[in-house]
Amino acid sequence: MKNRIFIGEFIGSCFLVMIIVGSGIMAENLTNDNALRLTANTLATGAGLFVLITAFAEISGAHFNPFVSLAMYLTKKIKGKLLITYIPAQILGCLLGVMLANVFFEHNIIELSTKNRDGFHIFLAEIVATFGLIFIIFATLKDGKTTIAACVATYITAGYWFTSSTSFANPAVAIARTFTESFTGINYLNTPTYIIAELIGALIAVFLIKKLILK
Amino acid sequence: MKNRIFIGEFIGSCFLVMIIVGSGIMAENLTNDNALRLTANTLATGAGLFVLITAFAEISGAHFNPFVSLAMYLTKKIKGKLLITYIPAQILGCLLGVMLANVFFEHNIIELSTKNRDGFHIFLAEIVATFGLIFIIFATLKDGKTTIAACVATYITAGYWFTSSTSFANPAVAIARTFTESFTGINYLNTPTYIIAELIGALIAVFLIKKLILK
Amino acid sequence: MKNRIFIGEFIGSCFLVMIIVGSGIMAENLTNDNALRLTANTLATGAGLFVLITAFAEISGAHFNPFVSLAMYLTKKIKGKLLITYIPAQILGCLLGVMLANVFFEHNIIELSTKNRDGFHIFLAEIVATFGLIFIIFATLKDGKTTIAACVATYITAGYWFTSSTSFANPAVAIARTFTESFTGINYLNTPTYIIAELIGALIAVFLIKKLILK
Amino acid sequence: MKNRIFIGEFIGSCFLVMIIVGSGIMAENLTNDNALRLTANTLATGAGLFVLITAFAEISGAHFNPFVSLAMYLTKKIKGKLLITYIPAQILGCLLGVMLANVFFEHNIIELSTKNRDGFHIFLAEIVATFGLIFIIFATLKDGKTTIAACVATYITAGYWFTSSTSFANPAVAIARTFTESFTGINYLNTPTYIIAELIGALIAVFLIKKLILK
Repeated sequence: MKNRIFIGEFIGSCFLVMIIVGSGIMAENLTNDNALRLTANTLATGAGLFVLITAFAEISGAHFNPFVSLAMYLTKKIKGKLLITYIPAQILGCLLGVMLANVFFEHNIIELSTKNRDGFHIFLAEIVATFGLIFIIFATLKDGKTTIAACVATYITAGYWFTSSTSFANPAVAIARTFTESFTGINYLNTPTYIIAELIGALIAVFLIKKLILK
Repeated sequence: MKNRIFIGEFIGSCFLVMIIVGSGIMAENLTNDNALRLTANTLATGAGLFVLITAFAEISGAHFNPFVSLAMYLTKKIKGKLLITYIPAQILGCLLGVMLANVFFEHNIIELSTKNRDGFHIFLAEIVATFGLIFIIFATLKDGKTTIAACVATYITAGYWFTSSTSFANPAVAIARTFTESFTGINYLNTPTYIIAELIGALIAVFLIKKLILK
Repeated sequence: MKNRIFIGEFIGSCFLVMIIVGSGIMAENLTNDNALRLTANTLATGAGLFVLITAFAEISGAHFNPFVSLAMYLTKKIKGKLLITYIPAQILGCLLGVMLANVFFEHNIIELSTKNRDGFHIFLAEIVATFGLIFIIFATLKDGKTTIAACVATYITAGYWFTSSTSFANPAVAIARTFTESFTGINYLNTPTYIIAELIGALIAVFLIKKLILK
Repeated sequence: MKNRIFIGEFIGSCFLVMIIVGSGIMAENLTNDNALRLTANTLATGAGLFVLITAFAEISGAHFNPFVSLAMYLTKKIKGKLLITYIPAQILGCLLGVMLANVFFEHNIIELSTKNRDGFHIFLAEIVATFGLIFIIFATLKDGKTTIAACVATYITAGYWFTSSTSFANPAVAIARTFTESFTGINYLNTPTYIIAELIGALIAVFLIKKLILK
């Protein structure tokens, strides 16, 4: 059981970051138009989220996100001790993902991003982005894995565009994206701020989920 | 019950306008190609509509649109007194949405759009756009929330491109879009015309729905 | 019954051509990049087919295509006398569609396209395109309207790109597209050739459908 | 039975390669932006995979890929002797597909690609790409044909972007793509390396599938 969760979260999170970072590098290599780069990055990420959540739902639950696991725990959907299986698997998987994406495109296996993503407006956007992600997951939780997968995929598709933070909405992904000097990177100075914003958004979501969805 | 409707419509409408306006600003910041801007705006809006309608269907009905609520009332799907819950929630949610999108991208929190959208051809297009939206919602109403959500999302995806009005098809959204000086804005002088066109389209749709769908 | 079929096919075919032609004009107005134009045209058409087929399936069967109706007749899915309801409704609907799209974008209500689409390679591509369309419709016929709708939408999404004819695959649409001087137009000299190719493709499909699908 | 498999795999594989190669040529003809070319190629391929797998699932199983058939055999889903029906049908279908796509766009019916796709980073990416494809197919195998189809389509949509090999993940497709001098071609010197990488990825996937999915 714990092994299945660990392996599932590890592989799924690894593919998720490979897709996010790899598609960003591919897009950067192919065009100078930043909107086209983000479009390609969006298509790949949205498509990737759909297939990964659908495929891994029955193996590990397909969280791929420490704050999704945290919200599951805070709403009593999983036991607290599982967090020590979920979260390390997610972080390690995301780190392997960024390394593989870097290698696929002949970058150094580990790089430090210099891409600045700071300012209050970005912080606020990342709070709203994560609030929305956690909320819609719980709002569709009883609708079956393909509906949840489609909702997460379409939410992040929109999120890449409507938030100035581009909706990381995932601390393990934020950590991994620190280690690529490419389109989807984030300066390590901004990573902690992102994670704090994501935590705030997730906690507000859990509060509202308890009021509106889980009665 | 009324509280759930109010909160659901408020949050959902807020996200809808954040997505429409925010993705428009992001696209405008990233490229000069107007077709690419509208493509990005379309992807985000279509994806956003799918996830929002699916996630909020069981909370509030996921109307997010005063003329959808009106059509529901005219076809006896909801009681008239609920309109005073639905419509203010939708308008206030849309207004918060445009303010947040403006803030996310360091615009002034409230701006007046100067983007002209006038002419008979646009007026006619907006009638047809809204007619189509209301019609397809009722044509799929008994097919479950994901089918309705997919149909509204794909309808608006097409609508952004086949109508010269870009298919607002929603008076609360039209009001909110008056308050952003960006890609998706509308000059306040044109907003009333849009709303009149939308009302005409909605009423024609209700007439035909009664003949063809609800027998 | 016949009235429902006529009205359903008329409105659905009208929207289909409005979407195809209107999105082509919008794209042409917004960019000079032909690949981006076709991308926008593809997105709108694919999305439009999904929603129209889903919404009109129970009203009229959602053929919107004389050769789909013909194939339905040749495989005994509909009676022959219904063809005189289906086909005129489809042609008239498509003609209204092109006129409305022209008007929406301030073109003349009726124009003659000068866009050449000739050559054996295009003729062959249109045969293959129509063969594929009819075949996949029958291959998914028992899977319910949303699956059929998704399959037609994705087939035409691919077809716009993999065939040099851009997969009209529909004689009523081919006729209508003769009357717009814009991205999706077709020179009236080429329209008959397209229709002949479509008929050949449809008949080959019916032959194979009887062998492989309807046993 | 064997006839249905042969004909289904032959036609389906033919359409798959027509879509991949044809959309690549169309994109190349319409724009100079390589990211836009790959976007169009991705849209067409993803859409095509969805419709082809859905439409042919009940005719032949819709493998269209020798290493999918091999994995089905290694996990005892099909009998070994069926491989001599599946694999020749797939290879012949793919070869007809590349020839038709070439003809549609007035290329020579058979060309030798000069497009280099070599290097260890590409080899590694193609292993990971094929591992992922086989894994997600088996992870969703019991979810019905539209879910499998959607997962393969979205996986390859992501794969075109996150791997430097652009995720051929199919030896029959790799062979066929050797014979077009266009966007999706592959130098014949690189084809064997791709096939070896795909075999390695497929075998690793089968190993993990037996541990995690088929218990």
